[in-house]
Amino acid sequence: MKKFEEKTIHTEPIFKGKVISLKVDDVTLPNGKVSKREIVNHPGAVAIIPITDDGKVILVEQYRKALERSIIEIPAGKLELGEAPEHTAIRELEEETGFGCHELTYIQTFATSPGFADEVIHLYVAKQLYKIENKAELDEDEFVSLIEVTLEEAEQMVVEQKIYDAKTAFAVLWIKLNQ
Amino acid sequence: MKKFEEKTIHTEPIFKGKVISLKVDDVTLPNGKVSKREIVNHPGAVAIIPITDDGKVILVEQYRKALERSIIEIPAGKLELGEAPEHTAIRELEEETGFGCHELTYIQTFATSPGFADEVIHLYVAKQLYKIENKAELDEDEFVSLIEVTLEEAEQMVVEQKIYDAKTAFAVLWIKLNQ
Repeated sequence: MKKFEEKTIHTEPIFKGKVISLKVDDVTLPNGKVSKREIVNHPGAVAIIPITDDGKVILVEQYRKALERSIIEIPAGKLELGEAPEHTAIRELEEETGFGCHELTYIQTFATSPGFADEVIHLYVAKQLYKIENKAELDEDEFVSLIEVTLEEAEQMVVEQKIYDAKTAFAVLWIKLNQ
Repeated sequence: MKKFEEKTIHTEPIFKGKVISLKVDDVTLPNGKVSKREIVNHPGAVAIIPITDDGKVILVEQYRKALERSIIEIPAGKLELGEAPEHTAIRELEEETGFGCHELTYIQTFATSPGFADEVIHLYVAKQLYKIENKAELDEDEFVSLIEVTLEEAEQMVVEQKIYDAKTAFAVLWIKLNQ
């Protein structure tokens, strides 16, 4: 859909990092005027709702430097170049939780911050989990701890702002509607 | 919560724009090693789920340059400096939809992209809507059109990826659970 399309007149690359890059585009608006758009490019990510055989959800706690606090999220991670999202989902589930899954089901894809970033998250639910003996390592700058909670506990964590993350808040409602 | 805290050794400001700014922090990790964090600072935002007296939800379609497509979202907007989120919510609801509301209820706050950005969204539901005669103007670089849909239509739009936005996907589930 291209309604109200903004055409790029000029692109100014500002920064290219390990994870994100930043550019400023000059665009023509539908009324012919010109404006600037500050845009973050991101490789995209997956997130996984891991549900145990007894209906609990496995969450990961990690420090998020951008927020200057640790938060509790469903497992997630960036797409590697050329990697199919379902492979990323299986890899991140294993790296972050030590679990494999016999059932991985795609739920949906959504943009996280469409006002300034192109990041999209492909969301999956993982069931029939099994412990992996020699699990893949986390990235060397990644530190997480695991939390297994019931749906009721997860809902309480939202109320207490211990769950403070859009994809995880979505996951809590999704479990409530689908379990 | 400061578990696995990453302490800043050095901050390199990269960019300061109209909407976002970007910095790269050198941090010490819990294991004593050093890493870099690319961080986008954003003023924060509100989003509003406007529900009509007959149970429909009002959505806005707008072009999102970062995604190079127009997408359909619940009304939302950035916090102005020093503005209380509920005031932003009332203002954005009026600017984007032309509706005021007699009932505005806070739902929750969540981070949209905690891996690289500090943006948080304060989410509200607006009910008892009324048409405003001389509504406040949109920002001069903002173009939106309105869509009023039933819950069933909104769910179908998620399936067809016409709803392709985390806060709006959350809103669809929230309505389903709370109406």
